[in-house]
Amino acid sequence: MAAAASYSIQASSSVGAAHIQFKPQSDPPNSVSIRFSSQLQPVSIASSHTTRGLMFQKVGCVVRAMVNSDVDISLSPRVNSVKPSKTVAITDQAAALAQAGVPVIRLAAGEPDFDTPAAIAEAGINAIREGYTRYTPNAGTFELRAAICHKLKEENGLVYSPDQILVSNGAKQSILQAVLAVCSPGDEVIIPAPYWVSYPEMARLADANPVILPTNISENFLLDPKLLESKLTEKSRLLILCSPSNPTGSVYPRQLLEQIAEIVAKHPRLLVLSDEIYEHIIYAPATHISFASLPGMWDRTLTVNGFSKAFAMTGWRLGYLAGPKHFVAACGKIQSQSTSGASSISQKAAVAALGLGYAGGEAVATMVKAFRERRDYLVKSFGEIKGVKISEPWGAFYLFMDFSSFYGSKFDGFGVIDGSESLCRYLLDKAQVALVPGDAFGDNTCIRISYAESLGILQEAASRIKAALSSLKPAIHG
Amino acid sequence: MAAAASYSIQASSSVGAAHIQFKPQSDPPNSVSIRFSSQLQPVSIASSHTTRGLMFQKVGCVVRAMVNSDVDISLSPRVNSVKPSKTVAITDQAAALAQAGVPVIRLAAGEPDFDTPAAIAEAGINAIREGYTRYTPNAGTFELRAAICHKLKEENGLVYSPDQILVSNGAKQSILQAVLAVCSPGDEVIIPAPYWVSYPEMARLADANPVILPTNISENFLLDPKLLESKLTEKSRLLILCSPSNPTGSVYPRQLLEQIAEIVAKHPRLLVLSDEIYEHIIYAPATHISFASLPGMWDRTLTVNGFSKAFAMTGWRLGYLAGPKHFVAACGKIQSQSTSGASSISQKAAVAALGLGYAGGEAVATMVKAFRERRDYLVKSFGEIKGVKISEPWGAFYLFMDFSSFYGSKFDGFGVIDGSESLCRYLLDKAQVALVPGDAFGDNTCIRISYAESLGILQEAASRIKAALSSLKPAIHG
Repeated sequence: MAAAASYSIQASSSVGAAHIQFKPQSDPPNSVSIRFSSQLQPVSIASSHTTRGLMFQKVGCVVRAMVNSDVDISLSPRVNSVKPSKTVAITDQAAALAQAGVPVIRLAAGEPDFDTPAAIAEAGINAIREGYTRYTPNAGTFELRAAICHKLKEENGLVYSPDQILVSNGAKQSILQAVLAVCSPGDEVIIPAPYWVSYPEMARLADANPVILPTNISENFLLDPKLLESKLTEKSRLLILCSPSNPTGSVYPRQLLEQIAEIVAKHPRLLVLSDEIYEHIIYAPATHISFASLPGMWDRTLTVNGFSKAFAMTGWRLGYLAGPKHFVAACGKIQSQSTSGASSISQKAAVAALGLGYAGGEAVATMVKAFRERRDYLVKSFGEIKGVKISEPWGAFYLFMDFSSFYGSKFDGFGVIDGSESLCRYLLDKAQVALVPGDAFGDNTCIRISYAESLGILQEAASRIKAALSSLKPAIHG
Repeated sequence: MAAAASYSIQASSSVGAAHIQFKPQSDPPNSVSIRFSSQLQPVSIASSHTTRGLMFQKVGCVVRAMVNSDVDISLSPRVNSVKPSKTVAITDQAAALAQAGVPVIRLAAGEPDFDTPAAIAEAGINAIREGYTRYTPNAGTFELRAAICHKLKEENGLVYSPDQILVSNGAKQSILQAVLAVCSPGDEVIIPAPYWVSYPEMARLADANPVILPTNISENFLLDPKLLESKLTEKSRLLILCSPSNPTGSVYPRQLLEQIAEIVAKHPRLLVLSDEIYEHIIYAPATHISFASLPGMWDRTLTVNGFSKAFAMTGWRLGYLAGPKHFVAACGKIQSQSTSGASSISQKAAVAALGLGYAGGEAVATMVKAFRERRDYLVKSFGEIKGVKISEPWGAFYLFMDFSSFYGSKFDGFGVIDGSESLCRYLLDKAQVALVPGDAFGDNTCIRISYAESLGILQEAASRIKAALSSLKPAIHG
């Protein structure tokens, strides 16, 4: 059922609002319905994946499936082993609902609500005006790679040369290519949960096995080094760390990273992918430590960063990988056969972004200040709700809160709320606020709320959520 | 040696000019040298791929290789099975030489020499000005996908709906994702040669086997339907067609495509990927036929097109796939875990490109006229060289000419020219013209010359090449 639901959302994703079909209650078994109790007809989003034969297939076992004119519509097992991105899907779905006239407050996206700072935008405009619209080198322009090296040295204490940098169409591509380059079939990719939705899927795309290490909200969702040590085997190839974390907002303190580094150092096969995309969105006194800067870790760390989050440049599609040349060149080889170099215009804009000053200068500081105010408001506001547990989010723009005390509750005409997915559906229906179920991040007790929206909208959302929750009777656990 | 050469170029690619090291004659065995007979020191470009342990690895057999601090630097077998893109590499290499002060005429790139038409550029600028810099849906904006559907209907006689379109970061990504989505391990990808360099590598990335079908210059490098029929097996999953063709400039006539379609129709497992990226760069009376428009072929054809070539938008990175929803959705699933949606700015520009009118209107017609003049000049000019064979190029902006009568020739201080690669090295050295060896496209008798340069530069290049060839004594064949 979970898989069918995610397929259906992806189908919606690929067509925007056009996909939403109004259907009678007798939905086909391979579609999922979002029902609005009062104000709307049932909305049924049919799954294109589960029609026309896909249901006859299993991972690793391709059954030929024929439809019209005897065409074999079977897909590669690798497609079936991978789930579509749930956050992308839910974001698209919420957008489609908004387009259909539903006054949804969308707090599902991982995207700043700010415009790209003016100096960056101007650099992009100048690039177009000057005809800087040709192919760039596969690895990115030398100018940008040199600027990235300067940034990594000044801000992160990391020494790289331009041939140790690979610029890609977003950090997502940087991470996937790194996983594909270093993981052989059967290798293990160690992923602390809650995790960014794409990590396990990327491991699967590389024929590797994701090994999920759970963490605890009472420990701020930080990885327990003892648990890590106990789970490492000779198949463990890559540990993925993300700090500040999506979805939890947690920031790894130096001491904990050092403990992890000590364990990593004992395992020659183990590399670390350090996802630092939220680096600049961090609240003092918390500070960001690059994993590669720890003793002995440079040689085995692949550092990923980008421009989307700190510089409000999501639509420009630009991220990068920094690491030992051997690994970066291997990633570049994959990139040369999959996308080649990223947008020339975006690369010029990115050079301007790195020219804004230390940690993005005033432009980024202004955004971080706003994020902090919102976080403070939400932590206080949700802290007042009985039964909600909150960790200490020191970075990114998410709260990952435990709502499991509401599971088991009922609401007339909706049925039983049995987990994060049904609670999110309830909140979308009753409060018309789009959130992401923790299930998507490997923790069903929680839901993720993005505060990349104005304080006014967040206040309205919190108020709607509280009202909707108050209609539920919390179940008593333990 | 061929592999070592390509590695070395890739290494250069990832760092631009900075990689070129001046070394004594005693190059290490894992580096390749480009020697300039008179005006320059020997240039040695060290291979990052062959140092630090890669040489201990073989495809399908990972041998752990340790260097500094006991880090295991082994790579996934998939990386080792794939060659980096030779055209990308040679383009980057020629750029690096030019930056180093060598007056190289670069005719290796697959990139128009024109600026992006003004109306398109303005649309990109407006997108930035209006803050249209956020994530788009994974499949691309509805606006762009609707515009693509309109184009395909009006220009190609193809009916698609927006949910049958997937917009990606360039046609290269569109093709790779299609290959990954439909090919299972062990499947065969049928590729007529000469082929675009990336097709066989993409098949390998999908764990499929490229099956190369040779063609003949005397038949304009067009696929012989009888040969196709004789090579199809139950493992044949995908036939890749490219018309107008890179690297040959050949255009498939309707009658031949219909013969191919008849054969395809007899093989239920066989799909066709029709790469139509050079569609608009075609010279009357030749016309472009979309393979999906042939009887019975819509259901089994994946049509790839994009904006780079016709609209001089290479740096904007935008291509698309059109096909049955089932396949397009599968490609979208892969994309949602690898790059998500393409640049929002480029998508706005692409909508403007499709608004220029039928087949790109006046802006594209002007470029095509210039390409045609250049083609006519080069065909005449190279036709005068004794021993050079030329086909009839009716589209794209390449000539793929047979220079094999020069193989076996010698030149003092250079040694024997034993194939397309050494002839290209000779021409780079002696004539300082960068061309791509046919070897890269699966035909060692030929070399590819791109005429995406002004007529004046092409005249100079032709004159330099003729002078360099006149210093060689053609070997007598047959």
